[in-house]
Amino acid sequence: MSAMSPPVVNGEFDKELKRGVYQAIYARRDIRAQFLSEPVPEKVLARILHAAHFAPSVGFMQPWNFIVIRKKETREQIHAAFQKASNEAAMMFSGKKREQYKTFKLEGILESPLNICVTRDQERFGPVVIGRTASKIMDLYSCVCAVQNLWLAARAEGLGVGWVSIIHDKEIKDILHLPEGVAPVAYLCVGYVTHFPEKPELEAAGWLPRLPLDSLVYCDQWAQECGNSWPELHSELVAAKAPYA
Amino acid sequence: MSAMSPPVVNGEFDKELKRGVYQAIYARRDIRAQFLSEPVPEKVLARILHAAHFAPSVGFMQPWNFIVIRKKETREQIHAAFQKASNEAAMMFSGKKREQYKTFKLEGILESPLNICVTRDQERFGPVVIGRTASKIMDLYSCVCAVQNLWLAARAEGLGVGWVSIIHDKEIKDILHLPEGVAPVAYLCVGYVTHFPEKPELEAAGWLPRLPLDSLVYCDQWAQECGNSWPELHSELVAAKAPYA
Repeated sequence: MSAMSPPVVNGEFDKELKRGVYQAIYARRDIRAQFLSEPVPEKVLARILHAAHFAPSVGFMQPWNFIVIRKKETREQIHAAFQKASNEAAMMFSGKKREQYKTFKLEGILESPLNICVTRDQERFGPVVIGRTASKIMDLYSCVCAVQNLWLAARAEGLGVGWVSIIHDKEIKDILHLPEGVAPVAYLCVGYVTHFPEKPELEAAGWLPRLPLDSLVYCDQWAQECGNSWPELHSELVAAKAPYA
Repeated sequence: MSAMSPPVVNGEFDKELKRGVYQAIYARRDIRAQFLSEPVPEKVLARILHAAHFAPSVGFMQPWNFIVIRKKETREQIHAAFQKASNEAAMMFSGKKREQYKTFKLEGILESPLNICVTRDQERFGPVVIGRTASKIMDLYSCVCAVQNLWLAARAEGLGVGWVSIIHDKEIKDILHLPEGVAPVAYLCVGYVTHFPEKPELEAAGWLPRLPLDSLVYCDQWAQECGNSWPELHSELVAAKAPYA
């Protein structure tokens, strides 16, 4: 399968290729309200799934499956499950936050032309997996890495992706007939979009601010600051407007 | 902070930029044995941490921190914790698999010039988080997306990353003095490398095979095959040797 990879490059990427990686990272958005109904060509779908499949996986177990959902009835069931969970969620906020919560569009299950459910099979290749011995959850991490690969590849293809997190796993499991031992990890809406918002919507709406990077980085142990270099580097990145330069 | 992003592009990426994204995805490796001791420039480190910080996060809560570990004593303690967990792990395999397990180099904690621990703060911005109401684990997924962003950005920079998964969380927590409510998600070794192996090492060693993508994709529900198009698309991708073409 290495035949599928481009020739192995052994150092830093060329400038434009590197720029592509950072552009995907910075221009990726969680899409809910901007989906177009235009279908996604099978070849493009194959490319983003293939990218997901080349995520790192603990012990090379490749614990993921991808369920591509186009059927209207199935998506309507999923949408109803979302609606129920979102009504429950609204009640957890109080006052103004609850009102604001209700104004947010939080999924594009029916408007996007396809949904993809990424699942985790804990039993793939048997019970003992290299690298999953001290932490049983490592294969779940592999599945999430696959989601992020898919998300970034989709962005490069001009496709928006939205992760629907307000839904109970049990309902997804029932609707998609997942067997014992297989669990949903991510329920994604995928499609072309009118546009990619400039900022994450919750940032733009003033729900929460972007944290400065240097407030999140420690050296050698928790809460130990790194000295002066971090704030300076951070300012440089802001000034440059191009972190990949 | 949007000033840090390149100008927003609203469709598919240009060919070379797109190629960069797929190249990072396909040429990324989990590095254990190929680290060089050459230091990582602060600016490059800032870029990969910044890329991690722009991962998707549930409710925009940005639950991650990054502890950059260079101190030799700390890395020696981590290495000892790995060694203990790996000895336990070896005992879980039997016969030939146990012997083969012992031949694998599974970490580069001391050889790499720096280690990065990505942590999860479940309490960031308070207990109720948009999107984390039905599934309490969503913020953990956000942290893993940050790891994958870091890994891909590092690959573009020519840096190898290895995820050390054979170590008990409790030991990392103690060694790095993580407070109550903060847990380690990933312990990463980072540095320049002699080379990036052509295939994942466990694949090359014949431990497990790469699964064909079409065996992992279903349509509309579990175990429902998608028809003829998937195997054909898969063959096309193999033949093209360039999934981004």
